Amino acid sequence: MRDVVIIGVGQTPVGEWWDKSLRQLGHDAVLAAMADAGIETADALYVGNMLSGQLVGQEHLGALIADFVGLRGIEAMKVEAACGSGAAALRVGVMAVASGMHDVVLACGVEKMTDTIGGVTTTALATAADQEYEVSQGISFVGLNALLMRRYMYEFGVQHEAFAGFTVNAHRNGAHNPSAMFQSPVSEAAYLKAGMIADPINLMDSSPVCDGAACVVLAPADRFRHRAKVRVLASAVATDSLAVHDRRDPVALDAVALSSQRAYGQARVTPADIHLFEVHDAFSIMSALSLEAAGFAPRGAGVRLAMDGEIAISGRIPISTMGGLKARGHPVGATGVYQVVELVQQLTGQAGANQVQGATIGMAQNIGGSGATVITHILSAI
Amino acid sequence: MRDVVIIGVGQTPVGEWWDKSLRQLGHDAVLAAMADAGIETADALYVGNMLSGQLVGQEHLGALIADFVGLRGIEAMKVEAACGSGAAALRVGVMAVASGMHDVVLACGVEKMTDTIGGVTTTALATAADQEYEVSQGISFVGLNALLMRRYMYEFGVQHEAFAGFTVNAHRNGAHNPSAMFQSPVSEAAYLKAGMIADPINLMDSSPVCDGAACVVLAPADRFRHRAKVRVLASAVATDSLAVHDRRDPVALDAVALSSQRAYGQARVTPADIHLFEVHDAFSIMSALSLEAAGFAPRGAGVRLAMDGEIAISGRIPISTMGGLKARGHPVGATGVYQVVELVQQLTGQAGANQVQGATIGMAQNIGGSGATVITHILSAI
Repeated sequence: MRDVVIIGVGQTPVGEWWDKSLRQLGHDAVLAAMADAGIETADALYVGNMLSGQLVGQEHLGALIADFVGLRGIEAMKVEAACGSGAAALRVGVMAVASGMHDVVLACGVEKMTDTIGGVTTTALATAADQEYEVSQGISFVGLNALLMRRYMYEFGVQHEAFAGFTVNAHRNGAHNPSAMFQSPVSEAAYLKAGMIADPINLMDSSPVCDGAACVVLAPADRFRHRAKVRVLASAVATDSLAVHDRRDPVALDAVALSSQRAYGQARVTPADIHLFEVHDAFSIMSALSLEAAGFAPRGAGVRLAMDGEIAISGRIPISTMGGLKARGHPVGATGVYQVVELVQQLTGQAGANQVQGATIGMAQNIGGSGATVITHILSAI
Repeated sequence: MRDVVIIGVGQTPVGEWWDKSLRQLGHDAVLAAMADAGIETADALYVGNMLSGQLVGQEHLGALIADFVGLRGIEAMKVEAACGSGAAALRVGVMAVASGMHDVVLACGVEKMTDTIGGVTTTALATAADQEYEVSQGISFVGLNALLMRRYMYEFGVQHEAFAGFTVNAHRNGAHNPSAMFQSPVSEAAYLKAGMIADPINLMDSSPVCDGAACVVLAPADRFRHRAKVRVLASAVATDSLAVHDRRDPVALDAVALSSQRAYGQARVTPADIHLFEVHDAFSIMSALSLEAAGFAPRGAGVRLAMDGEIAISGRIPISTMGGLKARGHPVGATGVYQVVELVQQLTGQAGANQVQGATIGMAQNIGGSGATVITHILSAI
């Protein structure tokens, strides 16, 4: 198996891009990554996307975007794992390079969610959950996360205000990320008075519906050592049941634990070696559960990391360092690639005001559904 | 790169399965393949599917089916390349094994298309074409293929009846395949009087809307030599523009040529070495164009192979040997895996009345859109 490195990254700002088509967003991210890598062609393109069939009336994004960026003819396909689609595309790209099938591979995540009317996007997002056992009962995806949050608060005796630190941290970091959708800090007071969406999840517990695309260029370490920005130490996937009621323990996120353990094993590290963690903070509750299941906090104590400032840039385990899903935004099928683009910025010292000093090993974790597909990548500085 | 073998195959009959859910179909195919391989677990599952988000309200099929077959926890994701999704999932599975990431990998294709009302399925299928440049103009996917067929007939002076042999051959073979949707022979006379769908494509030029699932089990040759059924000699993908008007030559299928050439190069064979060819005969015109672009006939002469009986089981290049997309059926995201299951039947001498005598090398080609993604696998007997 060949070692894999990242030689270029690109991203579009996250936002409501009503004047840009899906293919245009993908195009912009791919060309930015290719320019960053200093390459003019590639061998393959794997596109992470969840919703284009339902929201844009367009499947078949692999060939579509390959052609639109001027690479007609190359291998291309779409990869989907709900909100984990971006990292899933990256995972396939890593296998393509590791296997020796391809040398220069593009992994792009793209999503366009805002150009719809009514509840179309909410309905489409619910296809990440179990249609027969959950969605047909009338629950939305936010509703499922609200049940998880309520259960967590009940089991561990946690109040809603304990989660404020996740939102404050994400928005403080997003304020210094020019690609973030929200670039304004948010106070704890603002968090506490935000409107309720699905009790106990309020507006500021949630990531926004938005558009965006990000791309990384993968290559074999032995042939691209001189251009390598970071090394891919681990690429691991684990799954759980889609339906939350069917899990061993709904507030344990077993797939996060399994995916993290697989990644730690591949990279030969422990949680103590991770300098920053791009967590899948689609909702505040997911941050707490992920920190616990990935081994950064005991059960029920994930919120303490936020309360004690341990998740800040200068803390013990910085998370959402460029704004996370909350402030940078969560264009679902693109998020996993944004996370890795941001890790590359951190590990190459390009994170500006948000730089985690001395960071040489970082972890990104992208989640599909309420913890049903969990994809973990660990990267190291060169 | 490790050599890859197939150690088990499974399929459900193709049909209108209103009493079986999407996950049930996937489950049935996966368990059949695992039983055939004599295995009780696997490391990863890649699911080929195109339409579940639009037609079933369910994305996230990787984790869903992994859990439903009792493999909760394993790596899983969905792969999509329109009607080429099945072979795309197989392609990812081959990379997973070749890279050394996984040993025992399931590649499953599943589609459920019939449990809808009105024109929903036709609209969903059109997401394989270019939404902005084709579909928004009002054309359907059948309509696009009708334009190709009309152009072919004009350029090469071919009459509609010249295509009859493709349908007659497919249905003759399907009659002996217990998994085929249509198991009755069709005469040339019946072909000629079939109702018109999109002139010049009539009902018998077209593959049916249907449900089904198929699965293969992949493993590394060095560790599973004793269980290997066939070897994977080549796995190659090529792309073209989605929009037909934007191609160099609409009746040349450049991506078929490129994908075939890449596969021939990997397998170190020429078209003359291929004993049977599972062609993507979604429409009769695709058979003719594919035979030409893949190197089995000169341009404009693909129909001659059908007229002269060269595509029959005993002919020079047997195609659609188990009924093809026309008679076995075309559950779009599953088709590419069905093709490979059938190749395995042929190369292991299990094809019954349809057995191609002495077949040791076979090719399967799965196409997304009107030739925009073309995925070719070449297999050999052990």
